Amino acid sequence: MAYQRTFGEIPGHPEGSTYATRAEMRKHGLHAHNQAGISGTKKQGADAIVLSGGYPDDQDYGDIIVYTGHGGQDANKKQIADQTLDDNGNAGLVKSQLDKLPVRVIRGSEEDSEFAPASGYQYGGLYRVVRHWFKTRADGFKVCQFLMVKWGSVADVEDPQLPAGIELPVQAGDEGDTAEVGPVGRTKHVINKVQRRADVVRNVKSWYKNQCQICRKSVALPSGPSSEAAHIRPLGVPHNGPDHESNVLCLCPNDHLRFDNGALYITSDFKIVDNLTGEVIGDLWVQSEHKIGVEYINYHHESWTKE
Amino acid sequence: MAYQRTFGEIPGHPEGSTYATRAEMRKHGLHAHNQAGISGTKKQGADAIVLSGGYPDDQDYGDIIVYTGHGGQDANKKQIADQTLDDNGNAGLVKSQLDKLPVRVIRGSEEDSEFAPASGYQYGGLYRVVRHWFKTRADGFKVCQFLMVKWGSVADVEDPQLPAGIELPVQAGDEGDTAEVGPVGRTKHVINKVQRRADVVRNVKSWYKNQCQICRKSVALPSGPSSEAAHIRPLGVPHNGPDHESNVLCLCPNDHLRFDNGALYITSDFKIVDNLTGEVIGDLWVQSEHKIGVEYINYHHESWTKE
Repeated sequence: MAYQRTFGEIPGHPEGSTYATRAEMRKHGLHAHNQAGISGTKKQGADAIVLSGGYPDDQDYGDIIVYTGHGGQDANKKQIADQTLDDNGNAGLVKSQLDKLPVRVIRGSEEDSEFAPASGYQYGGLYRVVRHWFKTRADGFKVCQFLMVKWGSVADVEDPQLPAGIELPVQAGDEGDTAEVGPVGRTKHVINKVQRRADVVRNVKSWYKNQCQICRKSVALPSGPSSEAAHIRPLGVPHNGPDHESNVLCLCPNDHLRFDNGALYITSDFKIVDNLTGEVIGDLWVQSEHKIGVEYINYHHESWTKE
Repeated sequence: MAYQRTFGEIPGHPEGSTYATRAEMRKHGLHAHNQAGISGTKKQGADAIVLSGGYPDDQDYGDIIVYTGHGGQDANKKQIADQTLDDNGNAGLVKSQLDKLPVRVIRGSEEDSEFAPASGYQYGGLYRVVRHWFKTRADGFKVCQFLMVKWGSVADVEDPQLPAGIELPVQAGDEGDTAEVGPVGRTKHVINKVQRRADVVRNVKSWYKNQCQICRKSVALPSGPSSEAAHIRPLGVPHNGPDHESNVLCLCPNDHLRFDNGALYITSDFKIVDNLTGEVIGDLWVQSEHKIGVEYINYHHESWTKE
């Protein structure tokens, strides 16, 4: 029977509903597959994911999830290759991010998390994909990761943060072990929306007069020329980049979208590289007042290198 | 004494703090002025507003506020001219919108609202400016309006909606009378994040293959060409535009920003007009499948006409 892909709640299947098997969930239209974690296609987007302990890099904090994409594992779930965005599941989650589609999150009993059900599977509500990036594991393989927040929850903000004292292990190359973090009860979650520093935004935009450091154009509005303050290493979970001028670029919205989604990256000598062609397309415009942190440029580059 | 402009909470002055006079608030750095509603400048942004009943077009629903800008009134608070974005206060609120700055909301006892204090002034917390537009009042004068939502509240979402049954009177030209709406207790607020229809987004983007209907370019990402679905008449409070293909354009982020902030508008015969110069800069690209509602185009145009 063909799977009918629905975005959002399935009538009669509210949050908290439980299922004995994946076949049962498929029958009710909750998730397309009996094995794969991501239910989705590049063209339509992803409508659901299952967290079932298959990827050690997953992090489940209840309202905030760092989800590892699909692919690159052998039959024993050993990582033997890089993950890519050619994979339908991963590309589907990217489409859900860009089109702001709700994604059903389902937890299996095999997930190593306090939010996992005791047996079978449990539907945990709708989530939003905030962003994605590549992580290089300690074994050298790249996995695609997705930051997801619960739709309409306190975590459904631009830069969700974990409560003070709770930190995700985020060093490039780590194994994503959550053991040292300890459980965080859902009711204990006090997630703060990062309040971005107004002076940082003002300084960076003024140094460039709202012109984009990549294309050198600003967007002319009735209120004056406009630009966006783009963090190089993202704020909030799990990157925790600093809110400081050294970690912020002045970009137009189009180049901001490109930069945040890995269509281009900056080299440590400030060349702009088109990541689709691999070609250098220009020099990043850098004013003398603007001391950009090369470590943040490298962090961003590392999130999007292909080989 | 010079006013020290601070964005965000003032230490020692938590939400709920009360003040007898505006001079007292000015002294503590809560609001710059003793008369004007908006504390801000075009260059720095607005750090605070006062709601004090001076504009009949204001709407206060607690976590959601439709705030009327500054200017155009005589000494008796009679509207005698259009408001403009040249006004420092209005331009300051636009800057706070674009730079995502927190704005302190202060309510005076003269505000006609259940949220007003019995006497003096009360600090009601931090708000975010979602968008702005011009409204033509029944008397023919234009006022600038701002949709504001409480920072980090359930209303702090992309398209905040009032609970079913509660509607703002939003007909162009109305007087903004709230009497027929009735009070909405803050605790009764169940504000929904509008869940945008995935099929509408997918259809419109596919008709144009993610190319912008204004500049005809798409943003190339590793996941494929990208675009944004832009609502012509905005969703949610107070415009309540429909989530339907007839009310959605396929735009690049730069032109989406321009469109939403009145830098350009579309005529009823689909000419694109640069609102800064008044010149026609091209034709909107419209595919035959795409039946755009001219009433939505006109609603948007009306929100941004200058004379």
